[in-house]
Amino acid sequence: MSRKKIFNDPVYGFITVPYGILFDLIEHPYFQRLRRIKQLSLTHYVYPGALHTRFHHALGALHLMQQTIDVLKSKDVQITPKEEEAVCIAILLHDIGHGPFSHTLEGALIDISHEEISALFMEELNKEFEGKLDLAIKIFRGQYSKNFLHQLVSSQLDMDRLDYLNRDSFFTGVSEGVIGYDRIIKMLDVYDNELVIEEKGIYSIEKFLIARRLMYWQVYLHKTVLSAELMLIQVFKRAKQLVQNGMALPVSKRLNFFLSRNFTKKNYLSDRKELLENFARLDDDDIFYSLKLFEENIDSTLSFLASSIIHRRLFKLEYSNIPIERDYVDKVRLKVASMRKMFDISIDDIVLKGVEANLPYSTSKEEIKILFKSGKVLPMSVTTDYTIQSKIVKRYYLCYPKV
Amino acid sequence: MSRKKIFNDPVYGFITVPYGILFDLIEHPYFQRLRRIKQLSLTHYVYPGALHTRFHHALGALHLMQQTIDVLKSKDVQITPKEEEAVCIAILLHDIGHGPFSHTLEGALIDISHEEISALFMEELNKEFEGKLDLAIKIFRGQYSKNFLHQLVSSQLDMDRLDYLNRDSFFTGVSEGVIGYDRIIKMLDVYDNELVIEEKGIYSIEKFLIARRLMYWQVYLHKTVLSAELMLIQVFKRAKQLVQNGMALPVSKRLNFFLSRNFTKKNYLSDRKELLENFARLDDDDIFYSLKLFEENIDSTLSFLASSIIHRRLFKLEYSNIPIERDYVDKVRLKVASMRKMFDISIDDIVLKGVEANLPYSTSKEEIKILFKSGKVLPMSVTTDYTIQSKIVKRYYLCYPKV
Amino acid sequence: MSRKKIFNDPVYGFITVPYGILFDLIEHPYFQRLRRIKQLSLTHYVYPGALHTRFHHALGALHLMQQTIDVLKSKDVQITPKEEEAVCIAILLHDIGHGPFSHTLEGALIDISHEEISALFMEELNKEFEGKLDLAIKIFRGQYSKNFLHQLVSSQLDMDRLDYLNRDSFFTGVSEGVIGYDRIIKMLDVYDNELVIEEKGIYSIEKFLIARRLMYWQVYLHKTVLSAELMLIQVFKRAKQLVQNGMALPVSKRLNFFLSRNFTKKNYLSDRKELLENFARLDDDDIFYSLKLFEENIDSTLSFLASSIIHRRLFKLEYSNIPIERDYVDKVRLKVASMRKMFDISIDDIVLKGVEANLPYSTSKEEIKILFKSGKVLPMSVTTDYTIQSKIVKRYYLCYPKV
Amino acid sequence: MSRKKIFNDPVYGFITVPYGILFDLIEHPYFQRLRRIKQLSLTHYVYPGALHTRFHHALGALHLMQQTIDVLKSKDVQITPKEEEAVCIAILLHDIGHGPFSHTLEGALIDISHEEISALFMEELNKEFEGKLDLAIKIFRGQYSKNFLHQLVSSQLDMDRLDYLNRDSFFTGVSEGVIGYDRIIKMLDVYDNELVIEEKGIYSIEKFLIARRLMYWQVYLHKTVLSAELMLIQVFKRAKQLVQNGMALPVSKRLNFFLSRNFTKKNYLSDRKELLENFARLDDDDIFYSLKLFEENIDSTLSFLASSIIHRRLFKLEYSNIPIERDYVDKVRLKVASMRKMFDISIDDIVLKGVEANLPYSTSKEEIKILFKSGKVLPMSVTTDYTIQSKIVKRYYLCYPKV
Repeated sequence: MSRKKIFNDPVYGFITVPYGILFDLIEHPYFQRLRRIKQLSLTHYVYPGALHTRFHHALGALHLMQQTIDVLKSKDVQITPKEEEAVCIAILLHDIGHGPFSHTLEGALIDISHEEISALFMEELNKEFEGKLDLAIKIFRGQYSKNFLHQLVSSQLDMDRLDYLNRDSFFTGVSEGVIGYDRIIKMLDVYDNELVIEEKGIYSIEKFLIARRLMYWQVYLHKTVLSAELMLIQVFKRAKQLVQNGMALPVSKRLNFFLSRNFTKKNYLSDRKELLENFARLDDDDIFYSLKLFEENIDSTLSFLASSIIHRRLFKLEYSNIPIERDYVDKVRLKVASMRKMFDISIDDIVLKGVEANLPYSTSKEEIKILFKSGKVLPMSVTTDYTIQSKIVKRYYLCYPKV
Repeated sequence: MSRKKIFNDPVYGFITVPYGILFDLIEHPYFQRLRRIKQLSLTHYVYPGALHTRFHHALGALHLMQQTIDVLKSKDVQITPKEEEAVCIAILLHDIGHGPFSHTLEGALIDISHEEISALFMEELNKEFEGKLDLAIKIFRGQYSKNFLHQLVSSQLDMDRLDYLNRDSFFTGVSEGVIGYDRIIKMLDVYDNELVIEEKGIYSIEKFLIARRLMYWQVYLHKTVLSAELMLIQVFKRAKQLVQNGMALPVSKRLNFFLSRNFTKKNYLSDRKELLENFARLDDDDIFYSLKLFEENIDSTLSFLASSIIHRRLFKLEYSNIPIERDYVDKVRLKVASMRKMFDISIDDIVLKGVEANLPYSTSKEEIKILFKSGKVLPMSVTTDYTIQSKIVKRYYLCYPKV
Repeated sequence: MSRKKIFNDPVYGFITVPYGILFDLIEHPYFQRLRRIKQLSLTHYVYPGALHTRFHHALGALHLMQQTIDVLKSKDVQITPKEEEAVCIAILLHDIGHGPFSHTLEGALIDISHEEISALFMEELNKEFEGKLDLAIKIFRGQYSKNFLHQLVSSQLDMDRLDYLNRDSFFTGVSEGVIGYDRIIKMLDVYDNELVIEEKGIYSIEKFLIARRLMYWQVYLHKTVLSAELMLIQVFKRAKQLVQNGMALPVSKRLNFFLSRNFTKKNYLSDRKELLENFARLDDDDIFYSLKLFEENIDSTLSFLASSIIHRRLFKLEYSNIPIERDYVDKVRLKVASMRKMFDISIDDIVLKGVEANLPYSTSKEEIKILFKSGKVLPMSVTTDYTIQSKIVKRYYLCYPKV
Repeated sequence: MSRKKIFNDPVYGFITVPYGILFDLIEHPYFQRLRRIKQLSLTHYVYPGALHTRFHHALGALHLMQQTIDVLKSKDVQITPKEEEAVCIAILLHDIGHGPFSHTLEGALIDISHEEISALFMEELNKEFEGKLDLAIKIFRGQYSKNFLHQLVSSQLDMDRLDYLNRDSFFTGVSEGVIGYDRIIKMLDVYDNELVIEEKGIYSIEKFLIARRLMYWQVYLHKTVLSAELMLIQVFKRAKQLVQNGMALPVSKRLNFFLSRNFTKKNYLSDRKELLENFARLDDDDIFYSLKLFEENIDSTLSFLASSIIHRRLFKLEYSNIPIERDYVDKVRLKVASMRKMFDISIDDIVLKGVEANLPYSTSKEEIKILFKSGKVLPMSVTTDYTIQSKIVKRYYLCYPKV
């Protein structure tokens, strides 16, 4: 009798999805795969509740999209039922190209952005659904005349960000990341084909920006989280090296496919079918299970790193606001070298240095726009007495085994 | 059997108070009076849930104090049982000198700060409790050797602020004002007799500062809230004028006491006993009930203002970042004058202009201090890549009857 | 631009009300009066957060009604825009006839139920709004053909109950009273012109019934709450007696109006205009302020009771599952008589005995109905393996000054 | 400086663990393994948020234990620091013997209860920690003189139940399962060496019992959850059969160990060392990864079941209050047989019938006890006017592929 599917969600209570193409897409194996891809990779090593998946995030973003559309329509913004369905499809599928461990392994396993793979999956699904995703794909790519629809899917204030900040702060328990998403949505409007925020929502946007910044340093780039993720990247770099040097690793065929090849932006489209087929079957389980197998491998680097991750013997990570001095790095390298009697592990593989940068809000990219009661529209950065943080903040790190 | 009194609190769940002097102070009529003083004056005209009282706030601040003391003791900060009790008394009573409608009428009814009256009440209670408040009073006044105890009661990061931000955002429903009070408390420590925050709490402090700023503009200085409060002040200024010119107003004796006199910092101590006696019986009910009586008064200004407040016909309020031009003010005055046929209301009494200023964080006052792992202690403003807002933000306003 | 008014609500986040008659009714002084009538009378003496008003409750019930209508329409239940508006008006105004201190003084001040006075107010408003409330009144009275609309306003599972359980548990902080209102609403449907619950909502209904029962004993009939309310009733019974015996009490005219008359179901319609006029201006402030005046009255009973309430020196209340024995009552009366040296207070006025009954769910009244997937509809009481509590639970009490 | 480790927990905010043996146990690989064992098996197929682990649950139960001990000590219950540590260890480790997919596979993989394996692990750890777990083990086994300590770990009102109801309702989003755990804890006391609840906590206990019952039918035995879990059991029964018939399955060594043997209560102690070694390395990943391998197996039953689980093509499950009639079962079997052309799958392996029973509260086992103000102690079932549900509720089911 009821024509809607209801999902329970601790964050929003209930998410309702109309039966039809949206529900069918959710049922599709491509989308079900997202059940096995955690939103935040190894963050649960620090925040044990952060086990939520891309599946749940995509449903959440869909939920916010539905609410937003209702608000916009109540303000006489013209959105046809076809456009409504399309923008809902676009947000539902925006992350479908994410691979195992989300961003962490995005460069290490396959050097193509998840957005590009999302686009591949959408095209594939479009064939299967006989062209019904045409408009959704246009919107996703920013090629549709009503630009604000694309902005709802991808901009500095899109449904993606609203949901992930919300959801990540909920499941990590970092309550300070909580944002006033419902208030922000109520303040959304469209002006001159652009998404805008009503004047009285300005403090909510400030709060949203500061929350995002806080989540970066307190969660996404938390030193222990970063350490675990760097170690994971290191394992798979090593595995790739070994496989490409001819060693057989007892991993799944689909994982082996990605270990044995180096995709680049130039060549990936030629192998598109094989790539998708393998990618569509790859998830967190393949990765974590392979760590267990690596633990017993004869290659010391591989087994040392894998074992350390599994049993949570994480490396120490030091952050610094300025580049770390060569002298200090050398001292650390020496200490590590002297203490670990495993002569066959290269220090370069376990003393890791680099830099993390964070730009919570960009004033060069398309800005968030404020609509004043007077009818004027101004970019966020000139409308607030809060100094918008638009410079890149850099943190240099050195990461190495506890000695 | 249980030796603690439990209060239900929607904000923290339960607040437990040990039987003994703390409980006895809560039972005292001076403290029970706070049940009849709303924390946020007329804010409930905009945020209907904001009916919480100074009574509940004081209990909440006490609760946070207890948690903080536990944390500090677990970090080997020396706090004796006597000091613990004293600092708890100090925070419990910190607002006991608030009069009806809290800050709103603080200047209009009696020109002495609530802190000074709190101090009077404490001394009075100290007599009644035979000197048991000696240490609490010393701490409250900043005269005790362990300075950090005073800072817990009154500083830029005290239990007062932590509770009121929390509580006000809870009851208004402005979820964006929520702060990570529990995390902040866990990060507190004492260094060199000063309250400090551990390094990893730095983002929580930033969040606390931005939340406070947001609450100022979104709640405390919300244009409709300010309008209602300006009108209330105006009523009582007028009432005072009338009484002092010899008109008898049918208000309670205690209210009449304050309408007929002008206390100043210089003279109030001489009438101290009478002042306290009357003050101790004065609460929101006296004020709101008198509005109902004023509504029927023959003085047009008094009745117009009182009636407008009661029936929520609030004045329009315009904010501006620059001083409002004289020309514009004159135009508004003319419009108001022409439309209201009540020749006997002075335009000065109903066209109100002024300025509100907000300084969310002061770098000139004693700063919040950060304790680094290295052992270094630095003031907040130099430790963060977030640009601390330490300049005063001013908003000019013009407030007048809707025409 | 936006055509909806937004109210902040800590319980639901935001409540949106379309501009038009609903908003105009909210602005009306009759409705604004509800801002000054606490939902739970003196319950805040035990649960300090319980200061919420009938105003907020009515908005909340409206909010749930809007959600319910959306759900029903999505299930193809036919509801016209006119019916939608009418049922929203009916729920918005369902409590508009509540007097000060809600249920507590319902019998003591005026012996007519609040439902009847609500109906009077609705008719008055209908005149003012030129017949636009016709359908709402029909629905409110159960005289409209679509019976389920009335059930949404008044039944064992109406929007009133859903909101008040929710709201009362929220503001008291008794989290155990929380119900799955959103899930219940999603499970609502209409079958054969009757409101029904889908089969899989059955546990949510059980939970709703047990939560309601819990709230009765833990909050509404909490012994200290009951004691405070019995004392309040007693004060006004005494005041009425004194006034009707010719003593002038310095209360407001409107309060005096009700103290000096005894309305009955038979006579109240004849004085309807005067009654409404006075009732419309009466609120909690009149009552509490009069207590302060009574405190200084020469009648010992009046001043003793008033003073005890104001300073929260509440009577002891003992509950018993069986009628309290006459011997015990006599002993208590003797003790009270001996200890209080005020010979002029009648023991009957301060040793109070009676019985409170609670029937959380009635199987004799129209039952909650369950709709099975098979299409069958059965009353709740025969569909669950949880034994529905449909017998009246009685608690006898004795209430008297602490001796 | 701080001597406590802080864990973020979305349920309780923060969990603090003192450094020392408790922290060391958490760091141990045996305990870290619980990070990879979901609390609720495949429940996330219905409630996508239910991905929380035994690791988090154990920390949560520890947190509640610490709060309980504080409450008991404030009521003058004698608990020595040694006992406090021991009871904390006991609750921390109470689930350490859970295997992959918790209860689901408890019978299918190894026919020994998780409690017995928990005991084995504790003994092993006791050796490693040189006898420091002696007292914890005594308490866990109910062999210590202070019986109430055992009751805190295992009884009808233990910290285990309080945490899992809380946590499961939180992560599923079934808010109706929420219990007043903090209120319950505040009402705990000890009388005559037994855990008791103060009289005024009686409604909270009722609520706890009804919430537990609700969670059973709405979550733990939800028809789709049960279907997924029955299918999982079926896969591993089949795998065991195949392995024991000589087929080599490409599973991990540790999983193979359990597939190839049938442990019984009688024989498991003889192989204790090998059993523990293998068990200690087995987790959810082994199981789910093996499903992916099974999907490609030549055995049709194995591949059909595995593939159905992975891609969430779950069987239909019908519940009935009475045993399902043989005729109906036969009809279903025929239909399934006719539609699936795979002659090599035995109908017995995919048409599953059985019964689930639920006893939310037992009056035969040691009851929850209520302590009255009078000093009397009575079992819960005789003290409430709510009819305690102490009879077993049975639901018969039939589960089969959608045809």
